[in-house]
Amino acid sequence: MKFTQKFNNIVNKNNSLLCVGLDTDLEKIPKRILKKKNPIFEFNKEIIDATHDLVCSYKPNIAFYEAYGIDGLGQLKLTMQYLQKKYPEIPTILDAKRADIPNTARMYAKAAFDFWKADAITVFPTLGLDSLLPFLEYRDKLIILLLKTSNPDSPTFQNFSINRKPYYLAMANIIKTWKYENIGIFVGSTYPNELKRVRDIFPDHTFLSAGIGHQNATIAKAVKSGINKQKKGVMFNVSRHVIYSDSPRKEASKFRDNINKYR
Amino acid sequence: MKFTQKFNNIVNKNNSLLCVGLDTDLEKIPKRILKKKNPIFEFNKEIIDATHDLVCSYKPNIAFYEAYGIDGLGQLKLTMQYLQKKYPEIPTILDAKRADIPNTARMYAKAAFDFWKADAITVFPTLGLDSLLPFLEYRDKLIILLLKTSNPDSPTFQNFSINRKPYYLAMANIIKTWKYENIGIFVGSTYPNELKRVRDIFPDHTFLSAGIGHQNATIAKAVKSGINKQKKGVMFNVSRHVIYSDSPRKEASKFRDNINKYR
Repeated sequence: MKFTQKFNNIVNKNNSLLCVGLDTDLEKIPKRILKKKNPIFEFNKEIIDATHDLVCSYKPNIAFYEAYGIDGLGQLKLTMQYLQKKYPEIPTILDAKRADIPNTARMYAKAAFDFWKADAITVFPTLGLDSLLPFLEYRDKLIILLLKTSNPDSPTFQNFSINRKPYYLAMANIIKTWKYENIGIFVGSTYPNELKRVRDIFPDHTFLSAGIGHQNATIAKAVKSGINKQKKGVMFNVSRHVIYSDSPRKEASKFRDNINKYR
Repeated sequence: MKFTQKFNNIVNKNNSLLCVGLDTDLEKIPKRILKKKNPIFEFNKEIIDATHDLVCSYKPNIAFYEAYGIDGLGQLKLTMQYLQKKYPEIPTILDAKRADIPNTARMYAKAAFDFWKADAITVFPTLGLDSLLPFLEYRDKLIILLLKTSNPDSPTFQNFSINRKPYYLAMANIIKTWKYENIGIFVGSTYPNELKRVRDIFPDHTFLSAGIGHQNATIAKAVKSGINKQKKGVMFNVSRHVIYSDSPRKEASKFRDNINKYR
């Protein structure tokens, strides 16, 4: 099944544009879970079971698993397998922000889709189209191109002016000439004006946006900037604010409803 | 020990600026090795033993290991441990091309240096200084910023004109104002003019450059563009042309000598 179809199905079923980020840090896991054998997986399992009917996708950021080496990655595998078996209708985004020359990108694509079996991956378009083709060949997967990141220093290199346009917009104008149905777009929710300008260039693409939780982006602005004409087509990621809250279910529910309020 | 000291020691000892890229693809490994238990590691071990006195560093590209999942990464760990135990004087570059917001970059840095125990990592500077600080805090490690990649399509987004300067040079001019001793620079050997222009901006930084093997960059041009005033300060990476040759030792020796010819 194509990503967009799977995504639209779950958006309708769960009435949600909320993506929960599984950025699980051992140092922040409750003590009762730390005692278990695979604490990172067990923690994720609880989050997933508590929120599965409130989300449109899950997004593990692979850095958090790599930090704990082979063991951490083994627990990411358990998490992916759990999702794929118990909730196969929910898309998984591997937030890996990969990018390399074509011969190497081929291996990253193999990892993301043949090993992790993710439904989507985040990648930097900085190396150009040749570096993206090995990902784009997986036609049912969404290849999410990072155009504008959510962090405070992102303007330094992402807002350079090129013929009076900022860098990320100049990139967007080239990317829109690439005729691949499975390109997705990332713009941080902390930059709602930028999100709006990029959305105007890609009215029909699926977007991923992050920053409405811990990074304090305003939900109203982000939602109005990010949705398409059908008031859908975008996933808003929240990680820390949901997964480390006292009640991940309540918190996810609040975020889902707040996002829906502004759709 | 600081990276540059370790690096200069081995450059002098082995009289070499050759970095061998351990981009080990199971599909290209000889059949006699494929029969063994950890074929990727066994292959790497042979390459390392055959070339250790001819190189200035080894650079595994982590994508090739990720493609084989947990098992592949386990064999990268065996490779790193082998290098660290048997050849502790040879620096290891984890070619991972990572980049993420500060809270996540922290986890990538932990992975690279606390788990893999690499001496250096390649990262994209695209997100700005805040995203690099978690890496730069590891003062003895070299944080190699990718300014211009070696692939054919790299000009699309890396040579955009900004106030009449290409993007990668505009980035370089900002990066040179960052006062961190452990910043390294990457420019592809396939773009020797660009390498020269960036070297002029960073006369004293340690460089990594790739492309003189399979990607057909001219050694003479790359060496003249990349070396510093002491005719050192740069690693030239070759992967496929050395590791899949009939005699990796002969091939590495040829590359080392050819590089030295133009120093």
